[in-house]
Amino acid sequence: MAARQPGRPLQLIQLNMEERKVEVNEDALGRLEKRLRELGATAVAVVSVMGAFRTGKSFLLDLFLRFLRWEADHPSEAAEAAQAEAPARGGDEEFPLPSWITAAGAALEGASDDSEGFRFKGGMDACTEGIWIWSEPFMRKIEDREVAVLLMDTQGAWDSNMTKEQSATIFGLTAVLSSKQIYNINMQIQEDKVENLAYFMRFAQAALNKAAAEMERQGQGPSRDDIDRPFQSLDFLVRDWRHFRDDWTVEQCKDQMQQHLSRHVNPQKMVENSTAEALHAMFKRLNCFCLPHPGLIIEKDTWSGNVSDINKDFIRFMDLYVRDVFSTGLSTKKILGSELSTMSFPLVLRDFVSAFHEAAPAAMSFTQAMTNCTVLLAKEQAMKSFTKKMDEEAQRHPRGIKPEEFEELSRSITQQLEDDFKSVTIFGSDETRKDTWKEILENLKSLHGRYAEENSRRLEKVLVSFASWCLLGLALFILDRLSDWVCDWWSTTCAEASKVAMMGYSVIAVYVGFHAYLAYHDQGRLAVVMAGGELWKEMVRLMGVYGQLIQEMNFKELQENIQKALKPVLKPDSGESNAASNKKED
Amino acid sequence: MAARQPGRPLQLIQLNMEERKVEVNEDALGRLEKRLRELGATAVAVVSVMGAFRTGKSFLLDLFLRFLRWEADHPSEAAEAAQAEAPARGGDEEFPLPSWITAAGAALEGASDDSEGFRFKGGMDACTEGIWIWSEPFMRKIEDREVAVLLMDTQGAWDSNMTKEQSATIFGLTAVLSSKQIYNINMQIQEDKVENLAYFMRFAQAALNKAAAEMERQGQGPSRDDIDRPFQSLDFLVRDWRHFRDDWTVEQCKDQMQQHLSRHVNPQKMVENSTAEALHAMFKRLNCFCLPHPGLIIEKDTWSGNVSDINKDFIRFMDLYVRDVFSTGLSTKKILGSELSTMSFPLVLRDFVSAFHEAAPAAMSFTQAMTNCTVLLAKEQAMKSFTKKMDEEAQRHPRGIKPEEFEELSRSITQQLEDDFKSVTIFGSDETRKDTWKEILENLKSLHGRYAEENSRRLEKVLVSFASWCLLGLALFILDRLSDWVCDWWSTTCAEASKVAMMGYSVIAVYVGFHAYLAYHDQGRLAVVMAGGELWKEMVRLMGVYGQLIQEMNFKELQENIQKALKPVLKPDSGESNAASNKKED
Repeated sequence: MAARQPGRPLQLIQLNMEERKVEVNEDALGRLEKRLRELGATAVAVVSVMGAFRTGKSFLLDLFLRFLRWEADHPSEAAEAAQAEAPARGGDEEFPLPSWITAAGAALEGASDDSEGFRFKGGMDACTEGIWIWSEPFMRKIEDREVAVLLMDTQGAWDSNMTKEQSATIFGLTAVLSSKQIYNINMQIQEDKVENLAYFMRFAQAALNKAAAEMERQGQGPSRDDIDRPFQSLDFLVRDWRHFRDDWTVEQCKDQMQQHLSRHVNPQKMVENSTAEALHAMFKRLNCFCLPHPGLIIEKDTWSGNVSDINKDFIRFMDLYVRDVFSTGLSTKKILGSELSTMSFPLVLRDFVSAFHEAAPAAMSFTQAMTNCTVLLAKEQAMKSFTKKMDEEAQRHPRGIKPEEFEELSRSITQQLEDDFKSVTIFGSDETRKDTWKEILENLKSLHGRYAEENSRRLEKVLVSFASWCLLGLALFILDRLSDWVCDWWSTTCAEASKVAMMGYSVIAVYVGFHAYLAYHDQGRLAVVMAGGELWKEMVRLMGVYGQLIQEMNFKELQENIQKALKPVLKPDSGESNAASNKKED
Repeated sequence: MAARQPGRPLQLIQLNMEERKVEVNEDALGRLEKRLRELGATAVAVVSVMGAFRTGKSFLLDLFLRFLRWEADHPSEAAEAAQAEAPARGGDEEFPLPSWITAAGAALEGASDDSEGFRFKGGMDACTEGIWIWSEPFMRKIEDREVAVLLMDTQGAWDSNMTKEQSATIFGLTAVLSSKQIYNINMQIQEDKVENLAYFMRFAQAALNKAAAEMERQGQGPSRDDIDRPFQSLDFLVRDWRHFRDDWTVEQCKDQMQQHLSRHVNPQKMVENSTAEALHAMFKRLNCFCLPHPGLIIEKDTWSGNVSDINKDFIRFMDLYVRDVFSTGLSTKKILGSELSTMSFPLVLRDFVSAFHEAAPAAMSFTQAMTNCTVLLAKEQAMKSFTKKMDEEAQRHPRGIKPEEFEELSRSITQQLEDDFKSVTIFGSDETRKDTWKEILENLKSLHGRYAEENSRRLEKVLVSFASWCLLGLALFILDRLSDWVCDWWSTTCAEASKVAMMGYSVIAVYVGFHAYLAYHDQGRLAVVMAGGELWKEMVRLMGVYGQLIQEMNFKELQENIQKALKPVLKPDSGESNAASNKKED
C-alpha cells in the first residue's frame, strides 16, 4: 500500500458558463484515478456535503479532514479516544478539546489561502464552484474491508449563479455518487428545504432510471428495489441549532434531534406527506444531527481560524458527529445494485455527467414548473371538454347536423370554453395566459376539423340505417318479378304472395323515398346522391355479411350438425376416432 | 376621533384542519370593523410580516408596536427624535437606546404569556397560526391624509403543519391585503427563498386575475397595469446578517444591502432571471434591509425579554428600519386600482378568502409540480409523435394499407414510443412512470381507433382517383351508342369518330378494371364493391360539379360575354344603360 500523501482539493466537476453546462475536469479525474489505483482498495465510500451557499459546508469538511488525518496518523490514540468518556453535558466540567482538533495546530486550514484544506472564509462571496474532492482518499475499515473513503464538497445551492440545469446536475450527481450525503442546513429543517432536496433527488433518480433502462436493454437490468430506492444514507445536518438547553444531557439533545427530524420528515406526523414519503422511499437510511452555533467570532471575515475561539458545545457535538459519520454510518458506494470499485468510479462519473445532460432540459424552477403545469392542465382540460361536448352533441344527432349549424355549435362551445378559461388558475403573467389561450385555440381548430369531417360523414350516412329495409324491398321486388314469370300464371297462391310482396316493397319505397325527400329538403340534391351512394355501399356490405353467414351455415355448422346427428348411426371408420370413442366408453 | 385603546392581537384568519381549509374569524373581523368605523379613517395601510417559522417575525412586530405606540403617545418627542442625529457607526461612541424602545418598560411584551404584544417565545414550537392583526389601528399621516395603519402577523411558512392549499391561501392573502409586505428571511437572500416567495405571489396573482375577470364581466374592469403589477411594496428583511464590518458607516452598510438585493433579485445580474423579472413585474417597489444578529441570549428559552440584552448594533439598524417602514415607505392599500377603505376592508377580506379557495386546488409542492409537469409533457409528447408518425405513413400510402399491416404498423410505433418513453425524464417513483405509460397507452388506443378508421376509409377510396377517367369513359360510351343510331350509317366521319371513342372507353375500362383487380387481389371482393360504391359517389359528385360549372358558364359568363361582344353593335334600349353610356361618353 502506498504511503499517505498530504493531499489537496481537486475540482472534479466544473461549470462551463458559456455553454451553460457542467463538465468533468479530466485532469483532476486522472489524478484521482491514479491515486486510487496506487492505494489498491477495491471499494470506495463517498461522503459529500451539500446545501445552501455560505452555510459552512467547507468549514465542516475541514474538520472532517482533521479528524481523518489524525486517525490515520495516530491509530492507537484514535482507538483509545473512541473508548474514552467525555465529561457529561450539563455538568460543571468543560468539554476538553479532542486531540484530533488540536493535533494539527491551533488554526484551521481553510481559513487562509493555502491549499491545506477546503477553502472556506467569512465574507459574502461563495467559495466552492462545481464539485471538489479531496485528492487523498482515506483508507478505512468498513465491514472488515479496506475501503477508500473520499470527501466531496459541492458548490453552494441557490446562489443565483448557476442555471437550473447546472444546479440540477451538480446536486443530482452528488446524490448519485455519495454513499453518505450530508444535507447542511441552517437553523432548522423546513418543508421548503426538504422539498428542494427532494427535487434534486428526483432529478438524480430520473438519471438513474435512464441508466437502468440502458442496462435492461443490454440484458443486465438491476433489481426493482435498486431502482426504486437508489440512494444510501442521508443526514440532515442542522447548523446553528438553538434549542439545546444548557442543562440537558447528550441523550436528551439526541432525542430532540430525532423529534425534529420526525416532525418534518415523518410521513405519519405530517399534513402534506407525499414528499416525506418519497424521501423515505428513495433513501435506505435517513438521519438528523443538530450542531449548536460555533460562536459569532467564527463568522467574521477577520477570524484567523484559531480553534480555541470555537464554542465548546459545538465541538462536543462535532466530535460525536464525526465519529458517527466515519464509523457507524458509513458503507461502500453502490449504484443500481453493484458496488462502485476504484476502477469503475471514473467511468461512472463520466457516464452520469452525460446522463444528467440529457435529463437537464427537464430542470425547472418552482414557478416555471407551476406555470408549465397549470398551462398544460388548462390545455388538456380544454381539449377534454371540447371533445366531451362534441361527443354529446354527436350522440344527440346521430345523423349529423347541417354544416352551418355545426359551425354555430362549435363557435358556442369555444365561447363557453373561453369563459371557463377565464376562471382557470394559471400561474404566470397575463401574457402567459394569452399565449395559453392561443395554443388552446389552435388545438381546438384541429379538433374542430376532425369533428366537422365526422359530421359530414354522418350527414352522408343519413340513409344508411335503411339499408336492411332496402335489401328486403329489393328481395321482395325480385321475388315478385320472378313469380311473374315462373308461377303467377298457373298458381293463385303465387299470385297472392306476389301481391303481398309488391305491397311490401311499395311501402318500403315510399318510406325510404320520404326520408330521402326530407334529406333533400334539408341538405340539397348533392347530399341525397351522396347518401344514396352510402346506402348502396351499406347494402352491398350487408349482402356480403349475409352471404358469408349463409355460406358458413352451409359448409361448417350444418355439416357438423348433420355429422353429429348421424354419428351414433354410422360406424366410425378411422382408428383414431375409434380410440376416442373407446375412451368415452371407459 | 376615538381615544386610543391598548389593543391586543386578533386572529383574523384561522385554519380549519378537518376540512383542510382556511376561514375568516367573523368575531375578530367584526371587532376590527367596528374599531375602524370608530376611528373614522377613510383609507387603510397594512404592514405585514411573513417568512419561515421561528425566524423572529413576532419579535419584529413587537418592536414595531413599541415604536408606533410611543410615537402616538409622544408626538412632539417623536418629531424631535426623527431629526436627532445618532452617533456615527464605526466610531467609539455606543449607540444609545432610543426612547421608543425603553419608554414602555425594560422587558418586551411578547416574551411572556400576557396579551400585550404578538406572542413570541424561544422554543421549538411555532407560535402564530393563521393570520393575526393588531386590534388597534394606528392613525398616521400618509401623503397628508389620516390613514389607519394595521399590523399583520402571519403563520410561519414551511412548518409542515399546513396543507399546500392552506399555506398558499394564507400567504397569498397576506400579499393581496398588504400595502407593505415584509419577507423575513434568515441569514441571506437565496434563490430558493425568492422562488418560494414568487410561488405565493403567483398564486395571489391568479386569485386577483379571477377577481378582475369577474369585475370585467360586470363591466368595471381594472386597468391592465393594475392586474399585471398587483402588489405594492416588498421588503426582503434579512435577519442575523453577518457581513457588516465593525468599522463601516451606516451608508456603507446600506450599500452592501443594495448589493445583496441586486445579486439575487436583479434580472441583469442573474443567470436564471425569469423569477426575478416576475417579481419586479409584480411589485411597484422592491427593497432590502439587513439586521445584524440581536445576540445569542435572545434566542434562549430562558430570555426574560430584557431590552438591554439586545445587541446595540441590532437596535441601531432596527431604529433605522422602523422609521423607513412607517415614514418613507408606506402608502395606502390599493387592490386592482381602487383604494381599500375602512368600509371595504372586511368585504375584500371575505371575497378573497373564497377566491383563494377556488384557486387552491392548483396549489402544489415543488416535487408535485415537477411530477405533474413531466408527466403531462410526456403524455403530450407521446401523442404528438404517434400522430406525426401516423401522418407520415398516411402520406406515404395515400390509398391506405391493409388492416393487418396497419395493426402491425401501429404496434411497431407504440413499441418505439415505449422505448423512447424509457429515456424520458419523469419526476417520480417507478409507479408514477408506470401509471403515466398506462395513461399514454389509453390515449394511444383512441388515436389508434381514429387512424384505423381513416385507413379503412382510404382503402375504400382506392378507386376514387379514377372517377374523372370513368366519367370520360362513360361519356365516350354514350357518344358511341348515340352515333350508332344517329349518324354512323350515313357518315364515315361519324363512324371513324365512333371507333376512336370505342378505343378510348375500352382503354379506360381495361385500365380501371386492372386497378380494380389489383384491389381485389390485395383486399378481397367486399373491399372492391365498397371501392366501387365510393367511385360511383365520386362520379356523381363530379357530375354535379361539372354540371354546375356548365350551368354557370351558360347563364352568367356566356351571356355576359356575348352581351359585351354585342354591345358596340346593338343600340342600347333601356334608359338606364343610356344614361350610363352617356356618362361614359362625357
